[in-house]
Amino acid sequence: MDCQGKKPLKYGMVGGGPGGFIADIHRKAAALDGETELVAGAFSSKPEKSAEMGRLLCLDPARVYGSYEEMAQKESEMPDDKRLDFVSIVTPNYLHFPAAKEFIIKGFNIVCDKPMVTSIEEAEELRILVKKHNVLFAVTYNYTGYPMAKQAKELVKKGTLGKVIKVIIEYSGNYVLERTGIDSLNKDFWRLDPSKAGPFSVLGDLGSHAENISNYITGLEIESIFADLTSFVPGCKLENDANILMHYKNGARGIMFLSQVLAGEENNLNIRVYGTKASLSWYQNNPTVLSVRLLDKPEQIYKKSNGYLEPLADYSTRLPSGHPEAFIEAFANIYRNFAATLRAKKNNEKAGPFNSDYPTIEDGYSSMRFIERALKSYKTSSWVDI
Amino acid sequence: MDCQGKKPLKYGMVGGGPGGFIADIHRKAAALDGETELVAGAFSSKPEKSAEMGRLLCLDPARVYGSYEEMAQKESEMPDDKRLDFVSIVTPNYLHFPAAKEFIIKGFNIVCDKPMVTSIEEAEELRILVKKHNVLFAVTYNYTGYPMAKQAKELVKKGTLGKVIKVIIEYSGNYVLERTGIDSLNKDFWRLDPSKAGPFSVLGDLGSHAENISNYITGLEIESIFADLTSFVPGCKLENDANILMHYKNGARGIMFLSQVLAGEENNLNIRVYGTKASLSWYQNNPTVLSVRLLDKPEQIYKKSNGYLEPLADYSTRLPSGHPEAFIEAFANIYRNFAATLRAKKNNEKAGPFNSDYPTIEDGYSSMRFIERALKSYKTSSWVDI
Amino acid sequence: MDCQGKKPLKYGMVGGGPGGFIADIHRKAAALDGETELVAGAFSSKPEKSAEMGRLLCLDPARVYGSYEEMAQKESEMPDDKRLDFVSIVTPNYLHFPAAKEFIIKGFNIVCDKPMVTSIEEAEELRILVKKHNVLFAVTYNYTGYPMAKQAKELVKKGTLGKVIKVIIEYSGNYVLERTGIDSLNKDFWRLDPSKAGPFSVLGDLGSHAENISNYITGLEIESIFADLTSFVPGCKLENDANILMHYKNGARGIMFLSQVLAGEENNLNIRVYGTKASLSWYQNNPTVLSVRLLDKPEQIYKKSNGYLEPLADYSTRLPSGHPEAFIEAFANIYRNFAATLRAKKNNEKAGPFNSDYPTIEDGYSSMRFIERALKSYKTSSWVDI
Amino acid sequence: MDCQGKKPLKYGMVGGGPGGFIADIHRKAAALDGETELVAGAFSSKPEKSAEMGRLLCLDPARVYGSYEEMAQKESEMPDDKRLDFVSIVTPNYLHFPAAKEFIIKGFNIVCDKPMVTSIEEAEELRILVKKHNVLFAVTYNYTGYPMAKQAKELVKKGTLGKVIKVIIEYSGNYVLERTGIDSLNKDFWRLDPSKAGPFSVLGDLGSHAENISNYITGLEIESIFADLTSFVPGCKLENDANILMHYKNGARGIMFLSQVLAGEENNLNIRVYGTKASLSWYQNNPTVLSVRLLDKPEQIYKKSNGYLEPLADYSTRLPSGHPEAFIEAFANIYRNFAATLRAKKNNEKAGPFNSDYPTIEDGYSSMRFIERALKSYKTSSWVDI
Repeated sequence: MDCQGKKPLKYGMVGGGPGGFIADIHRKAAALDGETELVAGAFSSKPEKSAEMGRLLCLDPARVYGSYEEMAQKESEMPDDKRLDFVSIVTPNYLHFPAAKEFIIKGFNIVCDKPMVTSIEEAEELRILVKKHNVLFAVTYNYTGYPMAKQAKELVKKGTLGKVIKVIIEYSGNYVLERTGIDSLNKDFWRLDPSKAGPFSVLGDLGSHAENISNYITGLEIESIFADLTSFVPGCKLENDANILMHYKNGARGIMFLSQVLAGEENNLNIRVYGTKASLSWYQNNPTVLSVRLLDKPEQIYKKSNGYLEPLADYSTRLPSGHPEAFIEAFANIYRNFAATLRAKKNNEKAGPFNSDYPTIEDGYSSMRFIERALKSYKTSSWVDI
Repeated sequence: MDCQGKKPLKYGMVGGGPGGFIADIHRKAAALDGETELVAGAFSSKPEKSAEMGRLLCLDPARVYGSYEEMAQKESEMPDDKRLDFVSIVTPNYLHFPAAKEFIIKGFNIVCDKPMVTSIEEAEELRILVKKHNVLFAVTYNYTGYPMAKQAKELVKKGTLGKVIKVIIEYSGNYVLERTGIDSLNKDFWRLDPSKAGPFSVLGDLGSHAENISNYITGLEIESIFADLTSFVPGCKLENDANILMHYKNGARGIMFLSQVLAGEENNLNIRVYGTKASLSWYQNNPTVLSVRLLDKPEQIYKKSNGYLEPLADYSTRLPSGHPEAFIEAFANIYRNFAATLRAKKNNEKAGPFNSDYPTIEDGYSSMRFIERALKSYKTSSWVDI
Repeated sequence: MDCQGKKPLKYGMVGGGPGGFIADIHRKAAALDGETELVAGAFSSKPEKSAEMGRLLCLDPARVYGSYEEMAQKESEMPDDKRLDFVSIVTPNYLHFPAAKEFIIKGFNIVCDKPMVTSIEEAEELRILVKKHNVLFAVTYNYTGYPMAKQAKELVKKGTLGKVIKVIIEYSGNYVLERTGIDSLNKDFWRLDPSKAGPFSVLGDLGSHAENISNYITGLEIESIFADLTSFVPGCKLENDANILMHYKNGARGIMFLSQVLAGEENNLNIRVYGTKASLSWYQNNPTVLSVRLLDKPEQIYKKSNGYLEPLADYSTRLPSGHPEAFIEAFANIYRNFAATLRAKKNNEKAGPFNSDYPTIEDGYSSMRFIERALKSYKTSSWVDI
Repeated sequence: MDCQGKKPLKYGMVGGGPGGFIADIHRKAAALDGETELVAGAFSSKPEKSAEMGRLLCLDPARVYGSYEEMAQKESEMPDDKRLDFVSIVTPNYLHFPAAKEFIIKGFNIVCDKPMVTSIEEAEELRILVKKHNVLFAVTYNYTGYPMAKQAKELVKKGTLGKVIKVIIEYSGNYVLERTGIDSLNKDFWRLDPSKAGPFSVLGDLGSHAENISNYITGLEIESIFADLTSFVPGCKLENDANILMHYKNGARGIMFLSQVLAGEENNLNIRVYGTKASLSWYQNNPTVLSVRLLDKPEQIYKKSNGYLEPLADYSTRLPSGHPEAFIEAFANIYRNFAATLRAKKNNEKAGPFNSDYPTIEDGYSSMRFIERALKSYKTSSWVDI
């Protein structure tokens, strides 16, 4: 075959056994553009479950493992033509760090689900390892993959809004209320279990995304925060609801509110950015449009796949206008840019102008720091510097 | 004429000279149902302006005054058949207190614009006077006059939402950004001038409404608050932006965000209330609908003037479904209920079951306390009990 | 009093007894700006009901009549300072013509509800009488009173849309389905009774409005139409549903669909106009906004009471942006312009530049012709010229 | 490998050379669930373009052909383990028939883009061939693949709406206005060229979809139609705009309006169905929600991936609630059901209960008949029976 340069990148997966929802999204997103091929996996810490998943995915049983340690060892011994180009880590939070560490040390590039790790210390160690071993590391802050989030970023960057003075970010869901109720603690729900989720719940589930996308769009640095955290579930040691005030270094003010227990909210991530000349707002549940309001002009509704969009936004769509694109396509944009960057690196080439537009370990680190400061602010009931 | 009992109530106005926007709304709202008649006024502290306004309104010049003191004195001497049933006070904030006091002492009933006064001390004094002189006192928290705000209140009250656990209230506008810019202080804008607005700006303009409507709908008591206040206008001593965290006595959490400087926001008052069974949301800019979301049911959109509404909400509409009603009608609901209560009082009768549904001095007092605590919280950077 | 020139215009009402909904709207709309005063009426063909309504409205019993004939006679004999400036006719359709005729002949100006009359012949006769007696005659096509309908008209007029090529007009409701069901005929519902409604039902109720507002906004002339009419109610001789294809003289195409029996539709009047450069759409249920979509530009949402609006639209609002105005205010705009034109005529002055912007007998005539042609097209199952 | 039964189905493609938009969607949709694998193709009638596309897709050059005839011949000689399970036809309209015929005769199952063919005669011939050769034949009326379109269908079926009395279907776009303007004919645009599109343009592009989805959701049969067709482009022999009145056999009325030249419309397919008890409406541009309005109940907004949905709708989503799914996923639902049915047929098994839910040759035939009748109605300016 003469299409060598375009052959799909090979990857392996850690986590993502039968029934896992986020792993299935990773697989669909990675496959959407035909750029990657899943060839190995340690899908579960229970070997028989991992094997079962391998069969469901028609993988070679020889490359389906009972532990990430075994996988890292065996895969690192593969010959070049079989070697994994990268590893996707989609386990519960607490395993992100050890799994990532194991593969980075052996020189594998990484795509890691969020939150990246469970403490600022782990984040710092990983950051050093990534640098030392010169690997690529993406964190799947998938919401920044939406074309209209990119349009928003570009509008702020080119000054359409003037100086940003206020940021309002919400990310609310009903998944704890719906799945476990708030009368008693469902102990099987790992997101409420500190030994699996880390010392935070909604801050990691939703707050990390909120911090990331607001940084992505506004480009602002946070100076200090004040956090009010609440656990509504009896016996739950982790916060289900978080309301956070923010001061930005440029003088802007911000509020972020997060919740797992709001009836009627279905993955409601939205952001509004206000500047001295204009404001913008974007809702993940209606992702193909972006509202921009300039002083004394009619409100403007940008829609995906139109000629008036910024090149970065335009590059990030696959269908014509009026043909809605959604969650999987946005997720796939992370994989597509990561894959293009990786391909370029392998070939000692320069990637396309937009391919660096994916979240890296620096983004993962930033979120962990934000979470750590929020926990500290709540404990001390005071403003805490970032 | 044999329609005596239904004859319009006579009222006078303090403030509301040529060009004043809120006074014109008061006059239209008071007149909408044919229940009141404006017969006197001290429309401006400049006698010639007051007289001009009297002419525009075709009033008897003998009852148009150059000061509220003169008006109070002369009107208190009128014979019974000419005596004012009530006085509407629509001046800038700092005059509410002295004008109200003057008329209450002489036994007049009062409709007062918001914020009621400029300090908690004034609020306390007024509360005592109202009781002592046994007058009716309404504060025009007009947003509670909307039928769908009433529907929301009734749904919370009957338990549709379960136990309330979170409240999100926003009231944002662009009127300072638009009218004065934020590069320098417009000294003619009384809302930014402490000698006229009192020691607060956005808290009085918008925060008082937000506090009132959230109390009205949720029925919850606030326990403590934490406020972050910002002045974005150089030289402006008053806050233009406020972000407030709230703890309710029942354990619920709340956030309130207020601003005068958000590009694109046109009087954006909205409230969301979340309970253990359902949530609701209402937007003043789309006032005829109310969204209710129950766990695992389709979202329900209530619309004004339909048979399925609660009686209080139904009572508060004037047109059939599909015939939008808006700001003036909501405002008129305050006047209509106040007038009906006043008529009943005059006749020693019992008012209708829904006529007590208007904001009173207790609501005005509650808002002033909230504002005073917010200022204190900001100064001390700490949670303050209500 | 020295406000003579501004004294409210005096008017009388024909129709509008207790419980009538449209008459109450006329009264509120006429009163909103303090420009008119109701002083006489023949509110019902039953004298005791008329008298009862007079008492409810606190009118002088001497000017409350048991028939419009008596009213016309007696009121025409009033001295100048008591003489009615105009008469509002708000009866069921079949009385519009005889009542209007009676008053026009005696020189009274008229505000008439729609549809103006019940046949093209009556419309022609009235048109001649109005001219002969030189009276003002308004038809309350109130939807053209909305500021955003006016903005739409102005945008078409100034060429923002390019050449108009398609018009889509819908006006649908559920009032027959809801009020009478469609299983059997409710004989008390005058809108389904040919002796009261005329030989049409939905065409008169809704089609006349739809024809009027589409003419108003587009300025186009209809060349020919093809109509499909359906009666869904057994025993009902009048159409409840109408679907009409239209050819305009400039080559544009149009569709109009009307119904009284659509579950869930609450007075859903909406219009979309498409040109070679841009399109616009307006929904009566969300009346404060107007969407404009230009080729290869973001959609633009115009909102009432903003500085960027055309002067005619701006003139037609009463409150600032973000303070919703709705049905009554739009209706009042018809009365306000009619009153200003009438005042100017009385004083031999020129009315303001926007005061001629109200529907006249020509509009009433145009609708009647449209309805007559629609009935003919349906009977002949063919295209019929207008 | 032991996953034999789940191995991807092998397919080939006719049409879909470099730059083709719909072919890329077919490939992504077919691949989304890992159920199919593209292994052969005649991507263009120009052999070098076909070969180029084969290389871009990393296909074995031996299975990339310069014509569909060659492909049909060679592929029919493949051994069983290499034999194509089906062929996807994604050429311009005029080639659908000859290509489909060639492959059906050789026993291949078919997925065909829409409109299925270019005349009623071709449709009839194909229907006979499919039966004779016992192959599966899907037509990609992809909009019926949306979960909320399926929910709508199920609600009508279970009687939630009562008896259907009115159907309103719109499908409008701006692609001719935008791409070619309407001042002169762009001869390179095959959709306006009768030799490639067939004797219709907007009827085939959009009308076929509109006919299909309205049949799908309502389950009603059309009795007769009246069509008004317009070509707005000088020199264009095919219609760009169509307005069609419909009578259904059960007495219901319908209107369908289609256009290629409406500024601002981006693939705006929407449908509303009204019954005696309730109505529903669905918009393709906001595909994850479905509005249902019952008489005297609040409007209900169904949202994808919630527990209250009908099983068929639930089966057709892949992500949790709040995670939007869109065009590609809906398209993939057609492929997924077709593939499952094909797999079952190969294995002499019964497919899953929802797998027959994809459009077949009967749907393709129905649309062609509708288009043929619309053309006839327009030519004769009369109602034509279906």
